[in-house]
Amino acid sequence: MNEARIIDGQAFAAGLRQRIADEVAALKRDHGLKPGLAVVLVGEDPASQVYVRSKGEQTLEAGMHSLTVRLPASTTQDELLKVVGELNADPAIHGLLVQFPVPDHIDPLVIQSAIAPAKDVDGLNPVTIGLLASGQPALAPATPVGCMMLLEDALGDLRGKHAVVIGRSNLVGKPIAQLLLRANCTVTIAHSRTRDLPSVARLGDILVAAVGQPEMVRGDWIKPGAAVIDVGINRVPSRKPELAAQGKTILVGDVRFAEAKTVAGCITPVPRGVGPMTVACLLQNTLTAAKRQAGLPA
Amino acid sequence: MNEARIIDGQAFAAGLRQRIADEVAALKRDHGLKPGLAVVLVGEDPASQVYVRSKGEQTLEAGMHSLTVRLPASTTQDELLKVVGELNADPAIHGLLVQFPVPDHIDPLVIQSAIAPAKDVDGLNPVTIGLLASGQPALAPATPVGCMMLLEDALGDLRGKHAVVIGRSNLVGKPIAQLLLRANCTVTIAHSRTRDLPSVARLGDILVAAVGQPEMVRGDWIKPGAAVIDVGINRVPSRKPELAAQGKTILVGDVRFAEAKTVAGCITPVPRGVGPMTVACLLQNTLTAAKRQAGLPA
Repeated sequence: MNEARIIDGQAFAAGLRQRIADEVAALKRDHGLKPGLAVVLVGEDPASQVYVRSKGEQTLEAGMHSLTVRLPASTTQDELLKVVGELNADPAIHGLLVQFPVPDHIDPLVIQSAIAPAKDVDGLNPVTIGLLASGQPALAPATPVGCMMLLEDALGDLRGKHAVVIGRSNLVGKPIAQLLLRANCTVTIAHSRTRDLPSVARLGDILVAAVGQPEMVRGDWIKPGAAVIDVGINRVPSRKPELAAQGKTILVGDVRFAEAKTVAGCITPVPRGVGPMTVACLLQNTLTAAKRQAGLPA
Repeated sequence: MNEARIIDGQAFAAGLRQRIADEVAALKRDHGLKPGLAVVLVGEDPASQVYVRSKGEQTLEAGMHSLTVRLPASTTQDELLKVVGELNADPAIHGLLVQFPVPDHIDPLVIQSAIAPAKDVDGLNPVTIGLLASGQPALAPATPVGCMMLLEDALGDLRGKHAVVIGRSNLVGKPIAQLLLRANCTVTIAHSRTRDLPSVARLGDILVAAVGQPEMVRGDWIKPGAAVIDVGINRVPSRKPELAAQGKTILVGDVRFAEAKTVAGCITPVPRGVGPMTVACLLQNTLTAAKRQAGLPA
């Protein structure tokens, strides 16, 4: 039996970060422009702290300006809006995101709506979403952009392919459906209410799993030869009982990889698939935003 | 052979307009609130003049305040933006639309983006589109809303049904896909680049044709028993050669009705299907906007 080609997102992301760093160096040299990314963290969520630190480090490694604003969990919505307003106006900052989740007393939609669309590198402002949905130039959320890059690298032209997206979140499912539609795929959006999900999944020349359910997509859900993009990152107990008993965990995707790789034409693993693309694409969005704000082609 | 049930959009729209008129009367009586719709027409496009007159008449018939602003084709973009700004601020106006197309020297996106989202009864401002795409309360474009009303009237709960939308325009295809997704359908968006469109169309328990191609969808594209919504309104030569020779025309949809009605479970005709729903849903949007602006449940 043929095994699927493994799409190495880790290697692709490393190459992408290098290309971004080269472009940043050229921007500085030719235009005196240093792209800057600001990340605002409210509160002490441990996972968020890890993400924010990683974003800051990778921003610096790409040669960009990095600003991390840490605010206490007691920060009011108005105080946060004031910080966002200052960063919107700061000419050294070209990309700006507030790390979610925010504390319960802050309305995420109010914050997302306050971020200047030109700097909205997370692509969560309804204006940004609307521009993307209308086919206008806009920054798309980083994870969907990363998925598209891996797909285009693996398959070339996506036109006319039937893409099935399982999951309809605002952060992943819906924007990746928009990007696949823009790439001239036929797009099916499936979700928890879909009847006979395995049959619907099997329609896909491209299958994107973005549901957050460990190993939900089985081998027989996959059309033979399909490209499978697994966006899920789920932490589950180790498969080795003695390690599981010690509380050891592993990361798995939304796709049962061992089954899927005997059916698919190519597939992203978890980890080292889509995950590493997310921060790299955030940097790419920051670079794109900086060029657009400077009136350079992007 | 069973024949499809004909979905009588004309009768449904008449009933809807009556319910709107009743609710408008109650709003005036109980809250002293008279919903108002402003329509701005730039230039002399003959079809636009017909549409604008019809919108004004039906607005008055529903007991609402109707304002039609007619501007010369030479109106500059800045002048039009000033008019939009005044109507945005006018407390007697709850719904506001600019009739498209506008003259070439005016950028439609700039105008659409200037209309206050709360008054955006055409649902074309990217903010409105983004709110709708994010599952937030927002005014959806009238034609898609009309299609959803007819579907829910014909089928009841749409949850879990596979809906296929042929066409991906910002005005119809994309927003109806959003509304079908919100109604918990599995949604496939097909278009001119879709491979084997007949097979994809046959997936649909619901098939929405919104392509603007006369009678493109044939009987064998339809899953037996499916609900078919034909959004197309295409003017073609009369089928009777002697009338065609005199330049007589008829209206047909995007679906070959005579074939489709032998396969479908129910189907909208053209004319008297989706068409009459559009202005009725514009009035519904104006009513919803008025209630929301007054802080009433809508």
